[in-house]
Amino acid sequence: MKIGFIGLGKMGLPIAQHILDAGHELTVYNRTASKADPLKEAGATVAKTPAEAATGDAVFSIPFDDGQMEEVMFADDGIFNVMNAGAIHVCMSTLSVAVADKIAKSHEDGGHRYISAPVMGQPAMAEAAKLFVLAAGKPENIEMVQPIFDAFSQRTFILGETPSQANLIKLCMNFMVASAFNSIGESMALARKSGIDPETYVEVFTGTVFTGMVYQGFGSKIAAEDYDDVRADLALGVKDVGQFIEAAQTKVVPSPIASVVHNNFITAMANGFGDKDWSVVAKMMAKNAGIK
Amino acid sequence: MKIGFIGLGKMGLPIAQHILDAGHELTVYNRTASKADPLKEAGATVAKTPAEAATGDAVFSIPFDDGQMEEVMFADDGIFNVMNAGAIHVCMSTLSVAVADKIAKSHEDGGHRYISAPVMGQPAMAEAAKLFVLAAGKPENIEMVQPIFDAFSQRTFILGETPSQANLIKLCMNFMVASAFNSIGESMALARKSGIDPETYVEVFTGTVFTGMVYQGFGSKIAAEDYDDVRADLALGVKDVGQFIEAAQTKVVPSPIASVVHNNFITAMANGFGDKDWSVVAKMMAKNAGIK
Amino acid sequence: MKIGFIGLGKMGLPIAQHILDAGHELTVYNRTASKADPLKEAGATVAKTPAEAATGDAVFSIPFDDGQMEEVMFADDGIFNVMNAGAIHVCMSTLSVAVADKIAKSHEDGGHRYISAPVMGQPAMAEAAKLFVLAAGKPENIEMVQPIFDAFSQRTFILGETPSQANLIKLCMNFMVASAFNSIGESMALARKSGIDPETYVEVFTGTVFTGMVYQGFGSKIAAEDYDDVRADLALGVKDVGQFIEAAQTKVVPSPIASVVHNNFITAMANGFGDKDWSVVAKMMAKNAGIK
Amino acid sequence: MKIGFIGLGKMGLPIAQHILDAGHELTVYNRTASKADPLKEAGATVAKTPAEAATGDAVFSIPFDDGQMEEVMFADDGIFNVMNAGAIHVCMSTLSVAVADKIAKSHEDGGHRYISAPVMGQPAMAEAAKLFVLAAGKPENIEMVQPIFDAFSQRTFILGETPSQANLIKLCMNFMVASAFNSIGESMALARKSGIDPETYVEVFTGTVFTGMVYQGFGSKIAAEDYDDVRADLALGVKDVGQFIEAAQTKVVPSPIASVVHNNFITAMANGFGDKDWSVVAKMMAKNAGIK
Repeated sequence: MKIGFIGLGKMGLPIAQHILDAGHELTVYNRTASKADPLKEAGATVAKTPAEAATGDAVFSIPFDDGQMEEVMFADDGIFNVMNAGAIHVCMSTLSVAVADKIAKSHEDGGHRYISAPVMGQPAMAEAAKLFVLAAGKPENIEMVQPIFDAFSQRTFILGETPSQANLIKLCMNFMVASAFNSIGESMALARKSGIDPETYVEVFTGTVFTGMVYQGFGSKIAAEDYDDVRADLALGVKDVGQFIEAAQTKVVPSPIASVVHNNFITAMANGFGDKDWSVVAKMMAKNAGIK
Repeated sequence: MKIGFIGLGKMGLPIAQHILDAGHELTVYNRTASKADPLKEAGATVAKTPAEAATGDAVFSIPFDDGQMEEVMFADDGIFNVMNAGAIHVCMSTLSVAVADKIAKSHEDGGHRYISAPVMGQPAMAEAAKLFVLAAGKPENIEMVQPIFDAFSQRTFILGETPSQANLIKLCMNFMVASAFNSIGESMALARKSGIDPETYVEVFTGTVFTGMVYQGFGSKIAAEDYDDVRADLALGVKDVGQFIEAAQTKVVPSPIASVVHNNFITAMANGFGDKDWSVVAKMMAKNAGIK
Repeated sequence: MKIGFIGLGKMGLPIAQHILDAGHELTVYNRTASKADPLKEAGATVAKTPAEAATGDAVFSIPFDDGQMEEVMFADDGIFNVMNAGAIHVCMSTLSVAVADKIAKSHEDGGHRYISAPVMGQPAMAEAAKLFVLAAGKPENIEMVQPIFDAFSQRTFILGETPSQANLIKLCMNFMVASAFNSIGESMALARKSGIDPETYVEVFTGTVFTGMVYQGFGSKIAAEDYDDVRADLALGVKDVGQFIEAAQTKVVPSPIASVVHNNFITAMANGFGDKDWSVVAKMMAKNAGIK
Repeated sequence: MKIGFIGLGKMGLPIAQHILDAGHELTVYNRTASKADPLKEAGATVAKTPAEAATGDAVFSIPFDDGQMEEVMFADDGIFNVMNAGAIHVCMSTLSVAVADKIAKSHEDGGHRYISAPVMGQPAMAEAAKLFVLAAGKPENIEMVQPIFDAFSQRTFILGETPSQANLIKLCMNFMVASAFNSIGESMALARKSGIDPETYVEVFTGTVFTGMVYQGFGSKIAAEDYDDVRADLALGVKDVGQFIEAAQTKVVPSPIASVVHNNFITAMANGFGDKDWSVVAKMMAKNAGIK
């Protein structure tokens, strides 16, 4: 297939590489063009605008957020106006439900195919072709790109026929992750004020019923107060949990846990932690408990 | 060793059996005496009062709650007045920090040894000698009974020299578990109102970053609305999370997530779910979102 | 002055009447034209589009919400394109801060004057010319219309030089009101379950330290469960408190009380109370406590 | 009547003075005996123990909290053992519902009369005989002391036949007050970060729909950051709102607003504000928003 790929960040770059390795004809675009160098050397064409990458059979995009997605989509040199009838756009970003719906609607009106397919996993998992894909859209559209997903992921979950359902579930997952380390932070503040060693506490929960990478990974970070190694920064967390709440409100679903998580994040942000790893909220909770 | 064992519930019975199997001389007590029958047949002595079970080297207790513990301890036929100098009491229940402190203080004044050693795990894990023990108290006291712990558990975590530190961590764990299925419930209500199949949603989080028995076990229960198979009833959850909050307040630690969890539990209780599995809170959250 | 007036709802109609009575030349516009009949009889000109009402010295608008305001402002037959240089637009609606900022910016770019001047008070207060005006914008702009405010209000509060500051304070007030009757609802549920007569409870707080119309008015409604006499419906409350939270997030201010209020509102909305008076949230709280 | 009076704090002293002025034979007790000097000069007898003050027709008590009440009641030199059959005990403190129930039960068993009658109002109101009395208990018991209430109060509210109902309503009132200044604090933090003068904001709400002493009094304190003039210290607020929540849990009533208020208080306490006026929680909220 003739494929375009837009967005060569920490996740996008290894995904694009796997698609290229799978033998597809790839045209890539990134705002900072130099990021495309390794792909160019490996045989990809480098486009100067998103539009130039969008004239093939499929275009994959993984921009940073709603705002960048709308620009990639609707700007004068964006992809929307140049896509062929029947071509497919696959967006892998964590979009809001509202923006995903808007983009899906535009493509439907424009006679294009569209699916949302946000991914889960760390950059290392992207490199190892071990990501998880959360896909939603018309079954025939998902089938069309399933072999491409297989080139960089270990499993695809099919969530429904409305593309934004995949975005919603991605937001749910990010909420669940955020909620997990808020709970860790709240209980660890109590453990610390009760004279219990944080590392020991992490050992208890990860060594018993909270195995799994979220608790292991964030538990250790929080115990070690290692917030400078940033997986996702707090500001991004504020946005993601905010979009979960927004989606819940739109569907008239109360979100009391998410609201507490969000307010904890905002408090941490107001106190100068915006560029730290989002698990830094646990440090804010410790401060709120008078620790240090 | 000459050991007493008080409390032959779903957890106590298999634990006592393992202690007996390990070759100790065992005297058991349970309010409903018939529960002791299998142990009697296997060679244990059956006591008519807690006191009768407390005259050996060690007495293990696992009563239902604070109230029963205080009775076992301080009633006229309780264990406190008859314990030998130097004998050890090991309480394995989920006590409040305040009651654990009170009992520890009494034993210290009485010249007895005391450690708190609440256990984690399901009855099936107790039968398989695979429980986890959370122990706190003087190191020499824990060492004294470590071989007995080994007879019914896979691992002992040592949490500190103050017995109630173990109770605190047990409350932290129960809070973390409760918090996990509140997050599941909140996000699943949104997923359901967005037309996503609950089983699929559970598959997503358990199949990616939320492996581990808490998410797997409660995720499935919640998706299937299987609240009649009760592991811990909601009323017990209200108590446990309440004791977590109480401990946090005593240490001047804010507990905003626990407070939401607690209020969700209380709402579910007020709406008639008190005797269902504590994960039934997810059903209350669905109701609050107008589902069904 | 030659004045336009857009939006003849329960508040707009009496305000427009007072402006007319003060001797100004008034052109009015309302989507449902018949609402303008009494003003027409009293000497006002009736416009067929917002634009027709916006060619004088000043245009007052009080549309229902952000969406209607943007339409009145920016639609082809909207006011923005026809306003004279130096003319003033005074918007009296409860806008979001973001939309107020957008409108202020547009007018600045367009060479018009603009102030935000949301009003507080019931329709009866509008009829009696006893409203409160919350005004923000350049001092000379406020001065320009102060005599007109005086025609329908008892007092004008000047809040700052940025128009949206007035909108922010209006949202703060609506949050405070909503918060007050959430507190009433929460404590009254407890009072009722404790066998205390709701009317007596209202008498206690209104008869001691919570005099003032918010507590008196909503206290009585809640005690009497009189939610069909709608001052502001619940759906509007969801919007207003949502905009307060949105403004707080934009300024990186945590809003834990507002979040609880909002979730309570959303729960009530999901349970079918959307078109009742917004104080119906107290009924939802009673239900959550298992009452009835 | 021959009356005993126990507890000569800021409220107790002027109340006792009014009772004396009304012509009753008064015996007073206070832990720090010197507080009784002015009453002694005015003709009161000074007792050396609570018991000495409790042998007449009635004993009024207003100790600091649950703990002091239990001591005054049940200690060896306490009032319980010496009260005459048919004599009445009137407790005016803010007790927990549980302790009020316990004391009521004891008096019933002991053949004494008992009513709860916590008071509302500042010391200045006590001096002016303008307090409010919240009374609960058997009607004939309330009638028996109504003339005494009239000597120091402007109005008595009768809340029910179970004494602790009055304590519950007192806790509800303290929750409502605390909730009011949490809402003020939350919205004022937003107003301040939006560049609005705090005094102006207070003027808006007190000058429109939030007249009444709670908003006026605390609004001004918060705007002026005047937390050293302590009406009730934060630690007392933590206790009072904690007892409201405890009462709600006992009655299976969710208390989400009170939980937020409580956690805000605890955060402020953990950050060193325990001995400031309880409205200092607003300063904590400002800090959480990154102000100063």
